[in-house]
Amino acid sequence: MAAMKWWGWGVDGVAFTHEDKPELRDFIIEKIGLDVGAATESPKTFDELDLPAPDVADDLRAALVAAVGEDALSDDGLDRVVHARGKSIRDLIRQRRGDLPRIPDLVVRPADEDQVTAVLAAALAADAVVIPFGGGTSISGSLEASAAETRTVLSVDMSRLDQVLEIDEASRLARVQAGVFGPHLEEQLNARGYTFGHYPDSFTHSTLGGWIATRSSGMQSDRYGDIADMVRGLRVVTPAGTLVTRPVPSTSTGPSIREMVLGSEGRLGLITEATVHIRHLPQARTILGYLFPTFQAGLDAMHAIALSDASVSVTRVSDAPETQFSFATRKASTRLDKVQSKALTTFLTKAKGFALEEMCLSFIGYEGSEDHVSEQRRKVGRIVGAHGGLCIGASPGQLYDQKKFDTPYIRDFLLDRGAAADVSETAAPWGRLRELYDNTRAAGQAALDGMGVRGYLMCHLSHSYHAGACLYFTFAFEPAPGTDMIEQYDVVKKAIQQAFVDNGGTLSHHHAVGTEHSEWLEQDISAPGVVLLKALLHGTDPGANLNPGKIV
Amino acid sequence: MAAMKWWGWGVDGVAFTHEDKPELRDFIIEKIGLDVGAATESPKTFDELDLPAPDVADDLRAALVAAVGEDALSDDGLDRVVHARGKSIRDLIRQRRGDLPRIPDLVVRPADEDQVTAVLAAALAADAVVIPFGGGTSISGSLEASAAETRTVLSVDMSRLDQVLEIDEASRLARVQAGVFGPHLEEQLNARGYTFGHYPDSFTHSTLGGWIATRSSGMQSDRYGDIADMVRGLRVVTPAGTLVTRPVPSTSTGPSIREMVLGSEGRLGLITEATVHIRHLPQARTILGYLFPTFQAGLDAMHAIALSDASVSVTRVSDAPETQFSFATRKASTRLDKVQSKALTTFLTKAKGFALEEMCLSFIGYEGSEDHVSEQRRKVGRIVGAHGGLCIGASPGQLYDQKKFDTPYIRDFLLDRGAAADVSETAAPWGRLRELYDNTRAAGQAALDGMGVRGYLMCHLSHSYHAGACLYFTFAFEPAPGTDMIEQYDVVKKAIQQAFVDNGGTLSHHHAVGTEHSEWLEQDISAPGVVLLKALLHGTDPGANLNPGKIV
Repeated sequence: MAAMKWWGWGVDGVAFTHEDKPELRDFIIEKIGLDVGAATESPKTFDELDLPAPDVADDLRAALVAAVGEDALSDDGLDRVVHARGKSIRDLIRQRRGDLPRIPDLVVRPADEDQVTAVLAAALAADAVVIPFGGGTSISGSLEASAAETRTVLSVDMSRLDQVLEIDEASRLARVQAGVFGPHLEEQLNARGYTFGHYPDSFTHSTLGGWIATRSSGMQSDRYGDIADMVRGLRVVTPAGTLVTRPVPSTSTGPSIREMVLGSEGRLGLITEATVHIRHLPQARTILGYLFPTFQAGLDAMHAIALSDASVSVTRVSDAPETQFSFATRKASTRLDKVQSKALTTFLTKAKGFALEEMCLSFIGYEGSEDHVSEQRRKVGRIVGAHGGLCIGASPGQLYDQKKFDTPYIRDFLLDRGAAADVSETAAPWGRLRELYDNTRAAGQAALDGMGVRGYLMCHLSHSYHAGACLYFTFAFEPAPGTDMIEQYDVVKKAIQQAFVDNGGTLSHHHAVGTEHSEWLEQDISAPGVVLLKALLHGTDPGANLNPGKIV
Repeated sequence: MAAMKWWGWGVDGVAFTHEDKPELRDFIIEKIGLDVGAATESPKTFDELDLPAPDVADDLRAALVAAVGEDALSDDGLDRVVHARGKSIRDLIRQRRGDLPRIPDLVVRPADEDQVTAVLAAALAADAVVIPFGGGTSISGSLEASAAETRTVLSVDMSRLDQVLEIDEASRLARVQAGVFGPHLEEQLNARGYTFGHYPDSFTHSTLGGWIATRSSGMQSDRYGDIADMVRGLRVVTPAGTLVTRPVPSTSTGPSIREMVLGSEGRLGLITEATVHIRHLPQARTILGYLFPTFQAGLDAMHAIALSDASVSVTRVSDAPETQFSFATRKASTRLDKVQSKALTTFLTKAKGFALEEMCLSFIGYEGSEDHVSEQRRKVGRIVGAHGGLCIGASPGQLYDQKKFDTPYIRDFLLDRGAAADVSETAAPWGRLRELYDNTRAAGQAALDGMGVRGYLMCHLSHSYHAGACLYFTFAFEPAPGTDMIEQYDVVKKAIQQAFVDNGGTLSHHHAVGTEHSEWLEQDISAPGVVLLKALLHGTDPGANLNPGKIV
């Protein structure tokens, strides 16, 4: 896997563009008053960056050379900058400005668990700081050393631990090294007829270990579960030795060690391996598009599906603003498309009584045997119909499926044009979901209004559970003239996060805490909850060498 | 709920008997050489017990009176003895002998969370030990104070916190006080059309808080999940204040606080409330009996069901020894029964080619709409057929359903006749299940043989998961003449537990660690896992006031 751009998402040569989307430019002008016609800004060049010299004591360097070999140590400037932080909008803005953090002194690339063990031992002996690095996609500030850190900082890049080590076909379990990237994991499993089925938006550039360390969730989690449900056994190199949890399906051995590692963001040690659920590649797999007359109708339908005995892989419904954004990103259409689209619009408004400005786009996915998929489609079709919705076929779903991993590139496109976009997601019980949605929209809008900024707020339900769902908000705005983009971002972000915790939601459904969300942690898990976390983290890392300052 | 017998399981007037089971006496004579015709032993009488005077300082007593009122404090001898320990076979043997542990000085019965808070504050101020008490059914030693404990010991009986406080129908969540007993919880929910659906064997005498504190699992967990899957929000009175986790469906707020409370056995605080999943009472519910030609065929069928898209509430299959024991506990049968039974036997042996001594009894449960249940029965029927099994109808399942909560009474029946019986359960990946079963049977049998004792070992698969299953072993034996029953029990128990951890299983699937299993904890979760647990437990309870000595 090539390293990501030091100043933005993904790899060189891939970018988001409005040019093949005829409606998008006008849409953005109308909504936030920004003309995206041409780039107006650009990141500093790498040469303009001011890099401090790496500070690594000779003893530590010698111990690391002994641990991993000279070739697996890098104090190359670009390497250090790429490993300095993740890809939150705060990170992107600062990187583009050349506002670097306390960058790591050294990037270390162990090849196996023994080398990871030796690296940690060397780091602890030298009182250095160790920050595990997977794909670097964190948007919660989990990868950045504290500005005040005076000790040597090592970024331990886990990407050489990338193999599926063993497949236990009888148990449908695979033993996998934690540094493997999403596509390479699926490639290895697919070759044996299996899939893991975890597809976060970051899939292309994120790793199994990163998913575990942040309690990730993926597009098909309705079927496969969140990462917490998919991981059984774990191996973690800790200051006390290699932690091993058994890949048993359930256990009553006290507070769950497995669940302590999930979401630990490098604070307990370096995750080297996981034994994970795998499934046969499904015979059939499809994502269908649906339209609902209102967001409420869409939410109610997703809720009804969650309570039914229908089994689906994806439940997703956008609110009206996100639906309009989706339509505005359509590619240049053929004459036939236009005719069909016009016919559909007429049908929706005349025959179904939809108000187009209220209409909401939904995707529902199905996997399994051909029979199973047909059966579930029928079941869901009845529920959708009962809520006034209708199916618009497989092509919108195919498009979504192909394009979803490109979404993060939009932020760079907007930054090139002086605007910011970011996301915040939460989960809440069904009974509070609408209230949380309304109050969060209102809070976000009030924040934008208060700054005199025209912004765009949109949202979708992205995962359904028996007792609640995840709401995923996206916001974009062009900062007011003469203001600081990060300060304005903070005002909106804070308003949204505060609305989450004030309305029964959690501070994050699947993006972790890091430093970005730690301000709301106590409001979410209560002060005694923070006491428990601190007891665990401080008790196992008394020297604060393991990614200090994250979570709490 | 009446308190359980101080010397045995359940309430006065309920007991297991062989008298209505014509085949059982001969079966037990044949298998372990014991004639259960008449009781030969009895527990000491309560008057013979030697009870130490309660040791409660005046200040502490005054603070507790202020906290809960005089009437909610008890230093009555019977109360103290009932609250002194749980109901493991080790507990029962010692209680019957009058071999009492360090019994609590005072039983405290708070009425609400505020009172629990005041009780904990008073206890901490006086450096007393607090042991939460739900129904007292623990078989892992989780309720007994250390013999060396010199501080005042308070047993905090949570049973007055027994109300369903609120039902959020939209979210299918109920806010429930933790001291509620199983039947009372279902009664309150059933009155509103809902069920919780958690049915451990201890159901009648155990509480929601106890299930949470021990990571319990129930008969219908294949459908409803283990308790860890069913509990969302928690309230726990801790030394740092009241811990509150939100009832959100999923969250990425660092290591899971919710999962730290699950299985905490009173070591983090007193669980006062939980917000739990509820479901509508099913339209249809049935448990069917099946027979398989061999245990392997039964295991394979349960595995195939777990991997299929069939949805079931119970998967259970007994090995041949347990099947024979089940048949031996049949009640006196009518002439018609006998004819039918003979016809079935002929059919099985002649037409199906079963060897009766290899045959295994299975129960599979179904719940939901009438249509759903029919559909699942058909799906499962095909899988069972493909593994050589056949359905024997609903009556065996009904009998199992009615009688399962009486099973724990058998131990008292045997103790009255000089024999011991106990259980050990584990979970392991499917790929290791048969090997674990064979090696555990061999280890248990070798332990019995080594003592020159004829014992009976039997097992069933009690829960199925995607990647593994729970195996539940029962063993019974009459100790060799002149030996100590507890010492002989220890030999068998240790052999079985060691076989679990040596063969990829966990030390306990749903009976917790307590003191009974702590010896195998490090082998299960690894030494660094124990370090994490200790950091958590010691860090939050530096004075070791909260049920010290349990788990680690």
